[in-house]
Order: sequence, then structure tokens, then C-alpha cells
Amino acid sequence: MITVVKIGGNVIDNPEQLKSFLKDFAKIAGPKILVHGGGKLATRMAAELGVETRMIDGRRVTSPEMLEIAVMVYAGIINKRIVAALQAIGCDAIGLCGADMHCIISVKRPATPVDYGEVGDVDTVNSSSLKMLLDNSITPVICAITADYDGNLLNTNADTIATCVAKAMSEEALTRLIFCFEKDGVLADVNNAGSVIRTITPDSVDELIARGVISDGMIPKVTNAIQAITTSGLDSVIIKSSTRLHDDSGTCISK
Amino acid sequence: MITVVKIGGNVIDNPEQLKSFLKDFAKIAGPKILVHGGGKLATRMAAELGVETRMIDGRRVTSPEMLEIAVMVYAGIINKRIVAALQAIGCDAIGLCGADMHCIISVKRPATPVDYGEVGDVDTVNSSSLKMLLDNSITPVICAITADYDGNLLNTNADTIATCVAKAMSEEALTRLIFCFEKDGVLADVNNAGSVIRTITPDSVDELIARGVISDGMIPKVTNAIQAITTSGLDSVIIKSSTRLHDDSGTCISK
Repeated sequence: MITVVKIGGNVIDNPEQLKSFLKDFAKIAGPKILVHGGGKLATRMAAELGVETRMIDGRRVTSPEMLEIAVMVYAGIINKRIVAALQAIGCDAIGLCGADMHCIISVKRPATPVDYGEVGDVDTVNSSSLKMLLDNSITPVICAITADYDGNLLNTNADTIATCVAKAMSEEALTRLIFCFEKDGVLADVNNAGSVIRTITPDSVDELIARGVISDGMIPKVTNAIQAITTSGLDSVIIKSSTRLHDDSGTCISK
Repeated sequence: MITVVKIGGNVIDNPEQLKSFLKDFAKIAGPKILVHGGGKLATRMAAELGVETRMIDGRRVTSPEMLEIAVMVYAGIINKRIVAALQAIGCDAIGLCGADMHCIISVKRPATPVDYGEVGDVDTVNSSSLKMLLDNSITPVICAITADYDGNLLNTNADTIATCVAKAMSEEALTRLIFCFEKDGVLADVNNAGSVIRTITPDSVDELIARGVISDGMIPKVTNAIQAITTSGLDSVIIKSSTRLHDDSGTCISK
């Protein structure tokens, strides 16, 4: 079973939590891939360099200057720090952006109706190259930068990368996808940390949304997961806390 | 024959020259590795971020803040731009720092007699990992950042990385090392661009230095090359212009 794990800024911005997470990640048996987002460093760098962050409808617009910062921070410092930390605990990691082995080829998002700038949507995942690394016991650590067919680097959503990579790998071998975030899973009651919904299936999801059990920000996460498992060979999508990678907690979305 | 090519800041800082160089590099037949230095962007970034560049005896001291910039610039933007540009012209490249697959393990330079800060000297080149990539028709693009055994990233001299990588690869297969710089080769007369010394051997080098034919900055380049070919299976070291990678110009140092 191939395991694809995605972590976000909450883990990356907390050195102690990251260290502990990487220990748990290194212990996962079998071939594995880590996908990571950005964190606050890119925002801080942009502020220090006087590059303005422009938002449209709550989404960041990636100017050429912001793309340069994103590449430096995501593909540079964050990616290489994670790789070096994994090497030090015996996990043979390699840091990748989409340009490397052209493992994730993207296409620049059209400027209409909204121009988000230097942003790419995933076109192709080169699963055979990633499989080649896994077959050599190497663990890819993938950041949220991709490249188009013309050699342009582009900013790409890390959740989308994780989903596309997991779907593509499911054509090579049985694959599961784990989304790590702050909470223990999808909660039936947002005010009750213990109310984790343990399983969601394509058959139960519509009713859970209709009854308001799954609501707000969780709806796209869950519907994307359902969409991923129903349109590929992906075994399951697990949504859980980044502090509990080692146990079988969380919400499991499967057929 | 494995070809290891090293380029420095003069190529990296000139987009047109870099593009032309990468076209020539992509055309090299057989397995190849590119090693690149930094260029002016790190210095500019340091200035914009208010990080001071401290020098001792003409050598840069790498503070923790400067290391962070070096990782962002060398392993981030420069490395990934080169990789994306190579992919766009059909060369299946992968960007690496020493942490990736622990391909270049370094040891932090002792703080005495001079404390150069976060600088690492190459301890081990993991040639089997690099060979695995070459065997899969993937071209490693290596930047001048390495990692020690404890997961610390360190700044490392790009010329040294190129030499150590070439020496290590020569244990796997016949290997040649090409150093690209501004001039057409080692010149017998620095004022005459046409006075390239075509061949230097371990037998002829001492006389050439004694007669002042090889002088100044060329002495360490040539003696390091002689040292490399006499202490490893390395076939040859070629010193030539980055604009003439495609022809058989330059100075060839071999046994």
C-alpha cells in the first residue's frame, strides 16, 4: 500500500510539532510520499521584501514577485529542511517540485474570469517517475510548486497536488491518502472534539451534508475526497490530526 | 562516459547565456550531471532583507540568516528554474541539494582557526543514488547546499562539489569533469584570449607553474584538477568557456 500524506502550514510553522510529525511519518511502513503546503514564512518574506499580497475572493493572487518568493520558500527552505530532517532519522527522502522529473505538469490558469496570476492547475502526474523512486526505497517530499510544458514554474494548491498524486499512484499500486490538519477528523459537532465521524461513504455523504452534519469548510474537503475515490482506484482518504498519524484515528472516506 | 559540468555565477546571472548554455548541455550524449553555483541573486536578497555579508580573507562567512537565503536562492529559485528550463527542451532533469537522497553528506567546518559559519566540507558522495537516476535517464542538477549527518543544511563550495561528485562517479563509470568559466581555457598569456594551453598532464604541470605559464588564480584550479585525476579514476578535467560547451575547445587536464 502506497501512503500519500499531506501536511499544511499548522505543522510547518511549529518546529516541535513538525519534528514529532516527521518521526511518525518516517515510521509508516511501505512506500510513502509527503506533500506539504507553505506556512507563514512566505507571507513574512513577502512583507520583508515589500511584495504585496493581493487577494481576490479570499484567494491569494500570485504575482511574478510572489511566485519567486513561493519557489524560494516552498521548494527551497521548507522542502530541504524537511528532507534533511527525514534523512537524519533514517528516512531516505528526496525533495521535489513539479519540475523535477516533470513529475507534476501543470497548465497556467486562464486569466478569465479571474486572473490569479502565476497559478497552475495540475494537468499530468508522472506516476512512473515517482514509482521509480519508491521502488528504490526513496521517499518523495513534494512542495506546492509545479511547472508547465514551457518551463514556467507555477504556484499550485497543495491539497490538489496531494489528491492528484494519490489518484495517479493508485494506478501503480493500492494507495491511500491522508490529509493532516488541526482537528481529529470530520466532526459531527464542531464544538465537540470527540464527535469524529469515523466513516463516510459515497452512499452516506449526501445525507450527512443534507442533515448539516458535514458543514462549512468541511464540505469541499469531503466532496473532493468522495470525488477522488469514485473516479480512481484510490482506496481511501483519511482526514485526521497531524499529531495522531501513528494511530487509527480520524475520518475514513472510502467506497 | 558520464559528464559532470560545473557552471558559475557568470552564466546564471545572464538569462540569454544560461538559455544557450542549457541547450548545449541538453545535447551532451550519455549520462550527465550539472553542478551550479550561486550568482548575484543571493547577495541582492541579503541586501534587500538587511542581512550583512561578512568576509574573512576574501571568503564569505555564512551566518544562519545567510544560509537560509542561500538555501532559498540556490536550492529554490535557481535550481528549479534550471530544471524547468531543461524539462522544456526535453532533458529529464531533477534538482538536488546534498540532503536529497543524502547524495552529498558534509561535515561542518571546525570553527578554528577561522569560523566560516554554516559551511560544510564534503564527507561522502552517495554515487549509487546518483547512478540510479542516471540509469533511469534522469539528469541530476545539483546546487551548492549539502546536509550533515544530523539534518543540518550547510553551504558548500560548488567547485568542490563538482570535483567530489565527478571523482565518486568515476568509481561507477568512466567520467569526465568540465569546468565552465568566462575564458576559453587556461591561457599561457592572460592578455591573449587565443593562447589556450590545450593539454596539461601531471608530468607537465610543475614546469608550467615554475615557468609562470600557469599563474595566479589558475594555479589552484589546475592543481585541484591534477590532484583529482591522480587520486581517482576520473578520466579528465576540462576547463573551457560556458559558451563553447558544444565544441572541443578548452584545456584538457588528463594523465
